[in-house]
Amino acid sequence: MQTQTINSDTSADKKVFIKMVLDAWESHNARFNKLADGLTEEQLSAETAPDRNSGIYLFGHLVAVNDAMLPILGFGERLYPQLEQIFLTNPDKSNVEMPSVNELKKYRDEINAKLSSFIGQLQPADWFTGHTTVSADDFAREPHRNKLNIIINRTNHLAYHLGQLAYLVKRNPL
Amino acid sequence: MQTQTINSDTSADKKVFIKMVLDAWESHNARFNKLADGLTEEQLSAETAPDRNSGIYLFGHLVAVNDAMLPILGFGERLYPQLEQIFLTNPDKSNVEMPSVNELKKYRDEINAKLSSFIGQLQPADWFTGHTTVSADDFAREPHRNKLNIIINRTNHLAYHLGQLAYLVKRNPL
Repeated sequence: MQTQTINSDTSADKKVFIKMVLDAWESHNARFNKLADGLTEEQLSAETAPDRNSGIYLFGHLVAVNDAMLPILGFGERLYPQLEQIFLTNPDKSNVEMPSVNELKKYRDEINAKLSSFIGQLQPADWFTGHTTVSADDFAREPHRNKLNIIINRTNHLAYHLGQLAYLVKRNPL
Repeated sequence: MQTQTINSDTSADKKVFIKMVLDAWESHNARFNKLADGLTEEQLSAETAPDRNSGIYLFGHLVAVNDAMLPILGFGERLYPQLEQIFLTNPDKSNVEMPSVNELKKYRDEINAKLSSFIGQLQPADWFTGHTTVSADDFAREPHRNKLNIIINRTNHLAYHLGQLAYLVKRNPL
């Protein structure tokens, strides 16, 4: 059987599971972009639920997290380091001035274009090297703390907040 | 360097990768269990946000999805097939009688124990075989539609609803 041939080849398996992880990452980013781009600035300014984070805070939070992936994955410096204080260090409603929705969209698209470009250039073996915040000693003991694991964790983080952002949409997709 | 030795071995990579995926799955289930078990029946009966799914509906939905993983992964029949109609086919507030929170917890723990037991027995190569709902022909063309991918997708699905269930907790964990 053809399937058996594919599965007995561990190098092919490696490419397959990198694809699995990247497909999930890309599909969740696409869902996030579609959701955010379908909402007005007014809708995004609303709280996702009473006394919970606003849509624009979660939007900025997710953009800041994607930006911070650049140095963690060894792809270079963050493009918008000022987002850290606004959307990572401080909680929502902190009297810190936020960028507008249009600015955030611009940042997001630039950050995601840079991320995608570097992701596309990474060779299969590179994904299994340590990310930049794990020490060589720790990585030797814990080889799962690699670059691909960052993508898995960030996809789950994105899905978590996507569930909350969905509450800004008038009809509830489960 | 030790890390280089580990990373040049694709068979070791495969084990590392399976661990990454299973760690994320287990940690999200642990977060869900802790969250749900820390809420009263009254809190779980509330809507996660105005006019959105109730906590108990999402609880049952996640239990039903885990149960349905048993046949998809080839681990046997579902333990509680009656959950499908209540929590998958029908939306919330459908006038269908729901199990109590205590019954759902019992179901969840039995289902998760069965899942964990089979997951623990699966050999690395087994994870890269097709799940039971993909045809042999499709799988030959799309080898990413394997058992491990089910775990990746179900972890993201769990994270999505976990973000919503977090709104039942009095203080908002981001």
